[in-house]
Amino acid sequence: MAEQNNVILHGMWASPYAKRVELALNLKGIPYEYVEEDLRNKSDSLLKYNPVHKKVPVLVHNGKAIAESIVIFEYIDEIWKDGPQLLPSDPYKRAQARFWANFIQDQLMENTFLVVKTAGEAQQKAIEQVNEKLKVLEDGMKTYLGEGIVDVKNNFGILDIVYCVLFGAYKAHEEVLGMKVIEPEKFPVLFSWLMAFVEMEAVKKATPPHEKVVGVLQVFRQSALKSSSIA
Amino acid sequence: MAEQNNVILHGMWASPYAKRVELALNLKGIPYEYVEEDLRNKSDSLLKYNPVHKKVPVLVHNGKAIAESIVIFEYIDEIWKDGPQLLPSDPYKRAQARFWANFIQDQLMENTFLVVKTAGEAQQKAIEQVNEKLKVLEDGMKTYLGEGIVDVKNNFGILDIVYCVLFGAYKAHEEVLGMKVIEPEKFPVLFSWLMAFVEMEAVKKATPPHEKVVGVLQVFRQSALKSSSIA
Repeated sequence: MAEQNNVILHGMWASPYAKRVELALNLKGIPYEYVEEDLRNKSDSLLKYNPVHKKVPVLVHNGKAIAESIVIFEYIDEIWKDGPQLLPSDPYKRAQARFWANFIQDQLMENTFLVVKTAGEAQQKAIEQVNEKLKVLEDGMKTYLGEGIVDVKNNFGILDIVYCVLFGAYKAHEEVLGMKVIEPEKFPVLFSWLMAFVEMEAVKKATPPHEKVVGVLQVFRQSALKSSSIA
Repeated sequence: MAEQNNVILHGMWASPYAKRVELALNLKGIPYEYVEEDLRNKSDSLLKYNPVHKKVPVLVHNGKAIAESIVIFEYIDEIWKDGPQLLPSDPYKRAQARFWANFIQDQLMENTFLVVKTAGEAQQKAIEQVNEKLKVLEDGMKTYLGEGIVDVKNNFGILDIVYCVLFGAYKAHEEVLGMKVIEPEKFPVLFSWLMAFVEMEAVKKATPPHEKVVGVLQVFRQSALKSSSIA
């Protein structure tokens, strides 16, 4: 069926949500055409394919559009059954992977962005929030990953992708913020987990160049600090 | 395998999230023990089974705990393959069901609760927000449900459940708010969809008595209005 598959990904290089799908497609070895969107001037295709949210990522498979990265993961796994699976095969493990992926998305991402967007007291508060959530994730991953961290490379799935896209460019975050993002002493499981895959080929391929990430984080930070000082 | 299944649901009668799981279990015909939680005095079991969010619902299947209603839906469908399926079998239809269930949960629920919790100008704003989201859902369902509304009873899945639990007790909402929740003229598809299943046995069984819902909505509304007038 591979020859009938026409796959197009509408993304934007700095979008963590689009990056997730790019990484998933790379890991599964699915060939696709990539369309870079200018989010200040969205293409007619993007507006047609995702009229509800008008956001990236959108995966267009043989003309059918699917939006939202986590929904796309499930779809990819159901259509392309060959190659590595993004969700574990055991239903309970699948439930846990979904649960923790939601946790990272709903509880950790926004707070992590807040650290980049704030300074002084507000930033201190955001850092505390992030550390609180990281502690919950560390405890959860102790049980979920267990001794399996070293095997992450061979079982790279939705949870790894969501975590990896959030913290994979941690060196750029550290440079811009002047602080450690995942302290190895405080969060040994999370730190080992991150270290286990940053050198993977598929991850390196999907990670934008360090200087480019530093640049966009600095612009993002300066513009957020400027608008908060005006408001 | 049915005889090996020990299923416990930790819920709270007024929680829409817990109600979703109750409805899913009823529809699939899965026998379970129900544990009503007092959310002001949570049981040790609830804290043990859902240490991350400390919320209902939690489904405990043969001692393994799964939290979050949408994660539980997927788990139920994967474990109990007999009987009606909560997700469509076609991968693209599945993706759409997941997408719209997320839309209702993330975009519509909070605004709907806001209408109950506010008065005057704030309530007017919340109503506008709800109507805007309902319009998006109406347009989406025109395509998604199409001519399939009449068949909803035989294909009652996650999207129907999430929609049904939010608006199934619409008569109680109308009594407390003194206004239509889903105007038939404005939202003919959504209205027909709702009408198609409110009389289903499984839905009626899971819907609390009208007077009880009116009571809890009134308490909820009064307490929210009181605290907003103090703040």
